[in-house]
Amino acid sequence: MSRFLNNPDDAVTEMLEGFLLAHPELTRKADSRVVTRSTPDEGRVAVVTGGGSGHKPAFIGYIGEGMLDAVVCGDVFASPPVGSVLEAIREANQGKGVLLLLGNYSGDVMNFEMAADMARDEGIEVEMAVATDDLGAGTNVRPDQRRGVSGQFLIWKTIGAAARQGASAAELRELAEQVNAATRTMGVSLDGCTLPGNTKPTFTLEEGQMEVGVGHHGERGRSTEPLVPADEIVERLVNEINDELQLSNGDRAAVVINGLGGTPMLELYVIYRKVALLLKERGVTLEVNFVGEYFTALGMHGFSVTLMRLDDRTSGLLQEPASTPHFTQTAAIA
Amino acid sequence: MSRFLNNPDDAVTEMLEGFLLAHPELTRKADSRVVTRSTPDEGRVAVVTGGGSGHKPAFIGYIGEGMLDAVVCGDVFASPPVGSVLEAIREANQGKGVLLLLGNYSGDVMNFEMAADMARDEGIEVEMAVATDDLGAGTNVRPDQRRGVSGQFLIWKTIGAAARQGASAAELRELAEQVNAATRTMGVSLDGCTLPGNTKPTFTLEEGQMEVGVGHHGERGRSTEPLVPADEIVERLVNEINDELQLSNGDRAAVVINGLGGTPMLELYVIYRKVALLLKERGVTLEVNFVGEYFTALGMHGFSVTLMRLDDRTSGLLQEPASTPHFTQTAAIA
Repeated sequence: MSRFLNNPDDAVTEMLEGFLLAHPELTRKADSRVVTRSTPDEGRVAVVTGGGSGHKPAFIGYIGEGMLDAVVCGDVFASPPVGSVLEAIREANQGKGVLLLLGNYSGDVMNFEMAADMARDEGIEVEMAVATDDLGAGTNVRPDQRRGVSGQFLIWKTIGAAARQGASAAELRELAEQVNAATRTMGVSLDGCTLPGNTKPTFTLEEGQMEVGVGHHGERGRSTEPLVPADEIVERLVNEINDELQLSNGDRAAVVINGLGGTPMLELYVIYRKVALLLKERGVTLEVNFVGEYFTALGMHGFSVTLMRLDDRTSGLLQEPASTPHFTQTAAIA
Repeated sequence: MSRFLNNPDDAVTEMLEGFLLAHPELTRKADSRVVTRSTPDEGRVAVVTGGGSGHKPAFIGYIGEGMLDAVVCGDVFASPPVGSVLEAIREANQGKGVLLLLGNYSGDVMNFEMAADMARDEGIEVEMAVATDDLGAGTNVRPDQRRGVSGQFLIWKTIGAAARQGASAAELRELAEQVNAATRTMGVSLDGCTLPGNTKPTFTLEEGQMEVGVGHHGERGRSTEPLVPADEIVERLVNEINDELQLSNGDRAAVVINGLGGTPMLELYVIYRKVALLLKERGVTLEVNFVGEYFTALGMHGFSVTLMRLDDRTSGLLQEPASTPHFTQTAAIA
């Protein structure tokens, strides 16, 4: 598959160069894979995340006021090395400690844990929370063995707001675990995706089929099935998610309808429509919604539905202002 | 090509239903194709645009504080009917008149002109400005015969800010014409796009080819050529654009790197990098940049580069705050 790149081996480096040229409020040392804020907030815990590249706007698109303080970038779909994670912790730390957020992928978990230990040896307080929101492999998979997918956006948003309010590293870790436990995601796609430099996609489907339970790296899902109308897909995803979340009359929820990179927004809003109608039928109030591309798998034609059970605190945190290169919200403009 | 829809004939209606459920600050009368702000700004000219659907976030994603006041939506890639345009003018008008903004497509121009005349007969002051920023067909095409493409985002942003500052309808029309005259766009893609309900894309290319000069509706461009590295494509686009804009040492510019729907942001930032480096070499200051999906052609794997020559006023207007469903910027958050 063709791409608009130079040497595919340089893709992440050149993307980072472009990103820093476009967003001078962010900083990166020469040849580093760590991006931080040029003017960090002092006097509070720093929030750090990262992982493989190719998921933009995640992760670096969310560095800024009210969300992330530093991001460590791996190669496309590859875990960042321990040294880079350690560098991100050191750079982000303003003396009040660091919360590491990451998705549940063995390489990421190993490297982030190792870097956290090394940073603690240097006297930096480091807490860590691992997202496991993906129901792609089914509800029979043990929660601690599930992947972290687009539900992470809700973790970044709540934690970023809470960090700004002055929560401690341990409090932030607990909150992240609470948000993660209240959040479930399921994804569907019509194809896989093609890594830069590769000629073939991770998988292909025949016309009229869909893959249920896909991940953010073009992984196949749990089953290949005949494509059905959007409303039927949504009903199935919402039902499976809600088998675990148990949202019912009077409950409050947030939703993310996330495009995986090649899905027109026209489709995402048709999908949102059905999610909203279903929850309304069940008496669940959708207090916060995010419809768009928040966490992509290069150009994959697919989407995921994320639901999160809200309480007063988390609903408020999701609605707090934020200002980053690819996500800004504000109660009222000046 | 498969899509995540129900009946393709219902796609735009269901998308609108979803959009209004997601964004309760916007309003739409039952069965209407016109979307307005629930609480319009009084005492100033209203800014109205519209056109075919399938370009999201354009157009309805930009309704809100500091940008658009009403949008009239056609079917996918089809001009909205006269009656809907007239309805949008009536709904948006707060007694101070309306500025109509549109791209240069014969169906749109005809229908918007007719509706404008009918509204004037009703006593509403209506001015109209037509965008012609596309250089896709080459510099030999007369400016008044060029299409309006993603440069329109810069028109919406400047005009929305100027309307908020209280400019008259005639002043806004002049400003829109000035921004249009200072703006050029060129697009490239690796494929066409497939309309909902169709099985085949508007065109396909062989692996290793690119189409130069594509439009926002999956139109072929002026030539099919071997795909070259991103830096070479960018150099060519910037040179062709600058043959007309004549940006040189000491000049100031805005840039939009616009993904057409299926282009990973990884690629868009590699493209931005080269644009920024080229302009820096030439002593041009890039004061404002927008990198992302601003005006798409469903899921087309392509991008466009827009450059605009800035002066004090237009640079300031582009940096004014705005708050809409899919574009928010603010100097500092609360």
